[in-house]
Amino acid sequence: MEVNQAVKDLLALQDRLSAYNHAMGLISYDGDTAAPRGTAENRAHTQGILSEIAYEITTGEDTAELLDFLDAHKAELGQREKRMVELLLKQIRFMRKIPKDEYVAYDKLVVASQSVWHKAKLESDFAAFQPYLEKIFEYNLRFARYAEPDMDPYDFWLNENEPGLNRKTCDAFFAALRKRLVPLIRACGEKEQVKDDCLKGDFPEAPQRELALWMMEVMGLDMDRVGLATTEHPFTTMLGSHLDERITTHYYREDVSYSLFSVIHEGGHALYDTGSDPAFCYTVLDGGVSMCIHESQSRFYENILGRSKPFIRFLFPKVAQLFPQQMKGYAWQDFYRAVNRVQPTLIRTEADEVTYCLHIMIRYELEKQLMDGELSVGELPEKWNSLYREYLGIQVPDDRRGVLQDSHWSFGAIGYFPSYALGNAYGAQFLREMEKTVDWRSALEKGDFEPINAWNREHIWSFGSLYTPQQVLQNALGGPLDPNCYLDYLEEKCKELYGL
Amino acid sequence: MEVNQAVKDLLALQDRLSAYNHAMGLISYDGDTAAPRGTAENRAHTQGILSEIAYEITTGEDTAELLDFLDAHKAELGQREKRMVELLLKQIRFMRKIPKDEYVAYDKLVVASQSVWHKAKLESDFAAFQPYLEKIFEYNLRFARYAEPDMDPYDFWLNENEPGLNRKTCDAFFAALRKRLVPLIRACGEKEQVKDDCLKGDFPEAPQRELALWMMEVMGLDMDRVGLATTEHPFTTMLGSHLDERITTHYYREDVSYSLFSVIHEGGHALYDTGSDPAFCYTVLDGGVSMCIHESQSRFYENILGRSKPFIRFLFPKVAQLFPQQMKGYAWQDFYRAVNRVQPTLIRTEADEVTYCLHIMIRYELEKQLMDGELSVGELPEKWNSLYREYLGIQVPDDRRGVLQDSHWSFGAIGYFPSYALGNAYGAQFLREMEKTVDWRSALEKGDFEPINAWNREHIWSFGSLYTPQQVLQNALGGPLDPNCYLDYLEEKCKELYGL
Repeated sequence: MEVNQAVKDLLALQDRLSAYNHAMGLISYDGDTAAPRGTAENRAHTQGILSEIAYEITTGEDTAELLDFLDAHKAELGQREKRMVELLLKQIRFMRKIPKDEYVAYDKLVVASQSVWHKAKLESDFAAFQPYLEKIFEYNLRFARYAEPDMDPYDFWLNENEPGLNRKTCDAFFAALRKRLVPLIRACGEKEQVKDDCLKGDFPEAPQRELALWMMEVMGLDMDRVGLATTEHPFTTMLGSHLDERITTHYYREDVSYSLFSVIHEGGHALYDTGSDPAFCYTVLDGGVSMCIHESQSRFYENILGRSKPFIRFLFPKVAQLFPQQMKGYAWQDFYRAVNRVQPTLIRTEADEVTYCLHIMIRYELEKQLMDGELSVGELPEKWNSLYREYLGIQVPDDRRGVLQDSHWSFGAIGYFPSYALGNAYGAQFLREMEKTVDWRSALEKGDFEPINAWNREHIWSFGSLYTPQQVLQNALGGPLDPNCYLDYLEEKCKELYGL
Repeated sequence: MEVNQAVKDLLALQDRLSAYNHAMGLISYDGDTAAPRGTAENRAHTQGILSEIAYEITTGEDTAELLDFLDAHKAELGQREKRMVELLLKQIRFMRKIPKDEYVAYDKLVVASQSVWHKAKLESDFAAFQPYLEKIFEYNLRFARYAEPDMDPYDFWLNENEPGLNRKTCDAFFAALRKRLVPLIRACGEKEQVKDDCLKGDFPEAPQRELALWMMEVMGLDMDRVGLATTEHPFTTMLGSHLDERITTHYYREDVSYSLFSVIHEGGHALYDTGSDPAFCYTVLDGGVSMCIHESQSRFYENILGRSKPFIRFLFPKVAQLFPQQMKGYAWQDFYRAVNRVQPTLIRTEADEVTYCLHIMIRYELEKQLMDGELSVGELPEKWNSLYREYLGIQVPDDRRGVLQDSHWSFGAIGYFPSYALGNAYGAQFLREMEKTVDWRSALEKGDFEPINAWNREHIWSFGSLYTPQQVLQNALGGPLDPNCYLDYLEEKCKELYGL
């Protein structure tokens, strides 16, 4: 084999894998958006077959030979090709340790499981979802043991979601957060509560959708390449390459802020993916590198920018134009305070910036205990509810608003949640770095995201998955994770809002 | 190889092919419905790769060996397996004669071409579409010559779309139609024209969509398995198996009848596909057998049932309920006359039952001349317009409402159009047969499609592709194609409507 030819084969391999990812991603997206209700089984049938073929390609002898050859000739490869080989080998090493029939069965399971979860959530029926969730945890435990028998299984999944992450880092990070967040939430609670009545009322879907599309344009998304659809739980997905990105939202008629901020959140993910170097299309370098960096972008747009004073000042007239009756008598300051109100609530995706990380800590604690065998899936709802009482001081009225609220476990994302909290912290650190050169406040007052997007593009997005998360952080920040930067940001905001 | 094992392999092969069909069908459907505008290239990239893989599977040595083995052991196979082998061998024999690179290039071409056509139609810009259409006709000519060098190329494509069909049959059929249709249209034209003002006005999309969904339920579609979306040109597609069927429509705000009758038309296709024996799922036996039989069902529901007196009597109160202002002062008799008005018009899909076949004859004439090299694609718009003057006596104002109106050629469907006209004729013959045992008029007056669906299910749908079109017709009708049955039906209707 010659290196030149091997590099061509490497690109052809990724071409094929991107096509399967496109197909499987779209079938799943279709299931969440447009497909008739009774078609899950038909979808699972196709997904089972396609994932089996993708598995065969990824783990086949030809692929292994090719990657091993290129790995042995690393010195002759460019930076990009070297990283492609590294990323593919990582995947292959994992997949080759999983028996094929189990891998395919798991893939079918998560397809079916998502429909079951969806229905179970609507009906607040945890028992219907429980057998699926039990199997998902069993598989994740088993797969981790196959892949790294000497590693703690939960550490394995943390590291899969965020290369370099482990329980030790998370434990320390969450302890630091808890130490300052709990008194901060208490202090806010002792002050007069901020009103959020301007967000509540009757907001028909059509203008909400118009607001969502307007917001996507304002934040600089390429509307020719980024679509918006409606789903139970908002998400972002890249189809084939970053040339086709989809975000979804959910409209609540009684609350104008939910869809708006979830669109900004998912829009942040989409900006990151679609900001990849176009040369990365149809390769493993395309799109964001890790969950943490992804969440650092989505939550940066949603909260740090989206809930900032200068942006709300720009945004409010548009909201008032679309909802003139509902916004009558309110000023942008009311809207600003309302979307930043600090209050322990039931739903993670609706939580304010200050209490948000407590929702994550609860999931982190539960995942640890489930993976360690200290907690069974059957005991999960009760434990969930007790941690909500303990951490947030609130009573969970039903599983729909409790343990069934998130889709993540239904598609097998174990060890994913901590990324959200770490992403928050990185976002605050990015802000500190960015504001050395970018006057983001003046830009946002005019609704101009471009200087901010340009900074992110230059320091984060354009690299796609070329660098490891650690390299991205090192390049952009020149320093390590620092929870205090985020905590300082939150305290400053609360001080002003609640007059602490 | 053992026959038992070979039959298992045969089913596994079809499983895989159905998965690719699901993926490719969905990617195309997504492009027509939900995908952002600028994503066609990304889609074409994936489709190119998937169709190459599907081609490799279909034409590979393993498949050929398997099918040849089963063909040699025909006597030991059941009826279903025998037919599967027959259908797959037919496909393989065609595909193996086409060079792979040309097949893949053609597949990419038609994906790109559909987007180009869509834009060209909106902008009435034939020149933009012309190079694509030229290539499509070139490929179809070449492919026909590869496949059957001794056969007339247009005969080849007629036979591909409808096994057994050729120019001779079409020429005779269309001559018979023309002989009685032209004087019939002239006779109607000499009488006082029927009014259709109740169909025209301002009909917002939301209640039109509600009417469409109601109609789908009324006609007996399983709403858990049949979806409805909006596209430029209505169509029906089966995704993976008949367990997931999608129909599309287009709402015209100024005309309430277009979407309604296109939903009944596409709903007829969907009833046929989804009426297949469930045991046929994920095999080549699943779904309707041919274009003619398919159109015989869609046009049967749209026209023979959908525009019948008893059905309109049942339908009208629902229309009046959804559009109380617009229907004020009109009775069901007005609606009945309006949807059956005979008048030469520009758009095939909006044509009445009587003039409809003339639209088909024009396309048939053009396809013949294009395939024979008597006409170039560049001359097509002018020839199109001159035939519309000659056959229908009307002036085509622009290509959007002329040669660019149909999507068929953009996805390479050459020799398809005659199926619509033949379908009409078969539909009338099915009616004559059905009414021997089914009182369809009384059923439709109550909006009860079940006795009609049951007859179709028993005689046509449940067989899927198990029988050839000729066998289906023989089973259901016990006789050959008879244009006069359809012409009698039309004359009878016109006599009553126009008092001939």
